[in-house]
Amino acid sequence: DGRMKETNQRILIGLGVACIYLFIGAIVFVRLEYPLEKIEREAYLDYQNQWRQRLLALEIDESEIDKLFVNIRDAALNGIWMDRNLTSDPNWTFGQAFFFAGTLISTVGYGRVSPRTEHGKLFTIFYCVIGIPLTLALLSAIVARMREPSHKLRGLLNQKFGHLFTNNHIQFIHVGCVLAALLVFVFAIPAWIFSSIEDDWTYLDAFYYCFVSLTTIGLGDFEPGDNPDQNFRGLYKIMATVYLMCGLCCMMLFLGTLYDIPQFNLTSFFVKSDEEMR
Amino acid sequence: DGRMKETNQRILIGLGVACIYLFIGAIVFVRLEYPLEKIEREAYLDYQNQWRQRLLALEIDESEIDKLFVNIRDAALNGIWMDRNLTSDPNWTFGQAFFFAGTLISTVGYGRVSPRTEHGKLFTIFYCVIGIPLTLALLSAIVARMREPSHKLRGLLNQKFGHLFTNNHIQFIHVGCVLAALLVFVFAIPAWIFSSIEDDWTYLDAFYYCFVSLTTIGLGDFEPGDNPDQNFRGLYKIMATVYLMCGLCCMMLFLGTLYDIPQFNLTSFFVKSDEEMR
Ligand SMILES: [K+]
Ligand SMILES: [K+]
Repeated sequence: DGRMKETNQRILIGLGVACIYLFIGAIVFVRLEYPLEKIEREAYLDYQNQWRQRLLALEIDESEIDKLFVNIRDAALNGIWMDRNLTSDPNWTFGQAFFFAGTLISTVGYGRVSPRTEHGKLFTIFYCVIGIPLTLALLSAIVARMREPSHKLRGLLNQKFGHLFTNNHIQFIHVGCVLAALLVFVFAIPAWIFSSIEDDWTYLDAFYYCFVSLTTIGLGDFEPGDNPDQNFRGLYKIMATVYLMCGLCCMMLFLGTLYDIPQFNLTSFFVKSDEEMR
Repeated sequence: DGRMKETNQRILIGLGVACIYLFIGAIVFVRLEYPLEKIEREAYLDYQNQWRQRLLALEIDESEIDKLFVNIRDAALNGIWMDRNLTSDPNWTFGQAFFFAGTLISTVGYGRVSPRTEHGKLFTIFYCVIGIPLTLALLSAIVARMREPSHKLRGLLNQKFGHLFTNNHIQFIHVGCVLAALLVFVFAIPAWIFSSIEDDWTYLDAFYYCFVSLTTIGLGDFEPGDNPDQNFRGLYKIMATVYLMCGLCCMMLFLGTLYDIPQFNLTSFFVKSDEEMR
């Protein structure tokens, strides 16, 4: 009973912290993003009005003008786009569909392109019910396999610095090494590659893309191979799928190594009380 | 050494299965989605051409017409929209930003609205580095707490049907009960509520939205409160955030219950070989 009470209290504290965290996040995002949005909205309204005046002067009906703007927007949001000057690929080529399937089962889900037919939606549900557990199990197994060289590194660190530091300190150094390798090989170098392939991505954009993808958030504001005039788009999309899967393994390896250190295992803040009270 | 070989082989088999699964998924998605896309692309091209002819006849420059279409599309994809007839809210209101922060730390990440300033992107990275582990720890703790009533249910099932079924069968019945409760209270009823609030969502759309959200894929093709002429959008967005968090807890509870059954624990297919070989 006392144990239950303690757990409940800790969870309540956690919920309170989460609400405050969301509240602060909301305020900061509005502060950072709203000014640009306001400028862009006003610029767009001006632009729309100029065209409206111009078309009205040419005796085109007002409702038709409004409809034109709405229709182009709807098409854009549904991923429909035809460029007269370019031989633009459709969204649902094999490479794009492969990439889409990969983002589904890894739960990244960019969603720039998404199923629009009823059968497509039903198949998405069915595909994920099987695919997500499969992917999770496979990635976990690969991570378990990758931990062996990681453990060897730790053994090496222990051998070399065991007389200088405590076991806990060596764990910290080990996590630091894994983190450094992660930052260089999974974030910095791929971000550099993406920013050089994609014309309109800055380095920060590419880094932000890698981060948002490998945390499986997958906002989809940046998506590799989205530019219709890129060459080898299909192959590029498949390579991006491979990058995602390998990157996710590395992220899981790092988190596993991090959570091995008791001080970093946040869950134990809530669960520890159970053990202590027993 | 034999153990390593066995693990490696199983992982290779798993990778092969995953590749085939992606391959099949890609083919099915192209089959299901491409016909509709083709029709829509052609309809859009016709529409664009009609307007082009009409505007060319009115002696508007061709490059200007092309630019008009591109500009409206870019604005739509960047979430910029002003409707003359409606007092449309901006994207970055408090409610929307709260919802956005919630989708970030739960890794759902719809991405219809996403940060566009450099500071916004940097803050997103910082916010997630702290927020995602915090949310994960909190949700795990809540799920651990929720397992107590779930265990009580299993005890009850054992008491009532223990003389009829084996322990393993009772586990199956228990998972079935949890799954039924999940389907009704987390999917069917919320989907019904969403489809009645959102005018243009069918029931399938709403169910698909719930599924895609609570698996944390979050494609963002459907997002509650996206319609600018809805009332109480801010409050609705906050309620949707609460639904997401509660729904995720229920999903984690179900998966935890499912993975307790050895037959359903896919990871053990790969890891079991380690134990067996020792
Ligand atoms: K996601
Ligand atoms: K997403």
